[in-house]
Amino acid sequence: MTDDITLFEAMHSARSIRKLSADPVPDALITRVLEAATQAPSGGNAQDWVFIVVRDPELRSKVGAVYRKGSDIAAKVYAARGRPVHLSERQYQRFMTSGQWLWDHLAEAPVILVVCLKPRAQPPRNKLPPEVSYDAEMAYADRIRGASIYPAVQNILLACRALGLGTVLTTNHLRCENELKALLGIPDEVATFALMPIGWPLQNFGPLTRKPVREVAFADRWGDAWAD
Amino acid sequence: MTDDITLFEAMHSARSIRKLSADPVPDALITRVLEAATQAPSGGNAQDWVFIVVRDPELRSKVGAVYRKGSDIAAKVYAARGRPVHLSERQYQRFMTSGQWLWDHLAEAPVILVVCLKPRAQPPRNKLPPEVSYDAEMAYADRIRGASIYPAVQNILLACRALGLGTVLTTNHLRCENELKALLGIPDEVATFALMPIGWPLQNFGPLTRKPVREVAFADRWGDAWAD
Repeated sequence: MTDDITLFEAMHSARSIRKLSADPVPDALITRVLEAATQAPSGGNAQDWVFIVVRDPELRSKVGAVYRKGSDIAAKVYAARGRPVHLSERQYQRFMTSGQWLWDHLAEAPVILVVCLKPRAQPPRNKLPPEVSYDAEMAYADRIRGASIYPAVQNILLACRALGLGTVLTTNHLRCENELKALLGIPDEVATFALMPIGWPLQNFGPLTRKPVREVAFADRWGDAWAD
Repeated sequence: MTDDITLFEAMHSARSIRKLSADPVPDALITRVLEAATQAPSGGNAQDWVFIVVRDPELRSKVGAVYRKGSDIAAKVYAARGRPVHLSERQYQRFMTSGQWLWDHLAEAPVILVVCLKPRAQPPRNKLPPEVSYDAEMAYADRIRGASIYPAVQNILLACRALGLGTVLTTNHLRCENELKALLGIPDEVATFALMPIGWPLQNFGPLTRKPVREVAFADRWGDAWAD
């Protein structure tokens, strides 16, 4: 446990950890991780997040089967897409091998965290003034949903790192989300945004390889170099 | 500067800061913040993020006008929606007052950071095997875009906190996004996800008031209490 890790050390070493030990994780640590999640901002401070902590082995096995099904589709998409230009052949192979390992082993993690978001209360159509387009507003609401949940997900990733726990943000289950929702009794109107195995890592944390800032930042206008 | 702040201290005090001094912020600090952003995960490790650091006063003023226009629509939506049940009247008034202040003062921040995401390379339709639905795959890609940018946004919020800088995640500009894109020369295929004023805070950092974990977490299945 490295409870007192600095923010920058945590951010610069919070590698995606896919190989996890089956050893149990104390509930108190999961609570601590979730407390960190709830510190994140959300649109209108609505805090519509819900976190389902799946520990039951039988249920985990079924969640793993759903994840495997979604990943089988992902595998075909990856194959059709080919290697992204920014990854070397070696990086791409490592990425694919590591991802594939998880497709088969997700259920072995002692905890599978399912990150959900309830729909935000919207104004009734007849209460909006005529100059505001209801359809545009619904499209806007849809577009910004991720802003109300993925900051919390990043806090989960960082809190796990600080507590010595491994995890990774996965979304392949969304390709068969209804099966996952049926399994866990998630109401129709609630959407899932991430599925995160959590456990003690069998891999090392960071450092991370990333594009340098000068390749991803502009000064004032698109195309004008940011000199770092 | 509190460079050595612990992760948990940063997360538990990274309040949304809307009142910012007009004093300049050294470029080196912005680079540090962006470096933190790039440590975040992204789907397939694609790192398709682009950060535009708007410092030019004239440009900031124009960005501020776009934000004001989007916020005017937001104001009508908020009025139609009314106070969310989880906020007390006092909390709601504070929230609205603080938000409204920013609608008029965004351009005074020395830096306005525009967070963009390039479209992820998708497989050509004819390369996908028949059992994979192209339309379903495009819907999936659309749905998970936030997972590739809002973790980076959260790292920006936390890094600012650690460096003593104030910022807040805003999205009102999305209601007139094309005007912002034209202003900054952002290509059609690139989407913006957040507009973040950054500067020295005129408000104090945390602590934050949030729903307790027991209200937002379930054990194994939706509805089963997580005992924290």
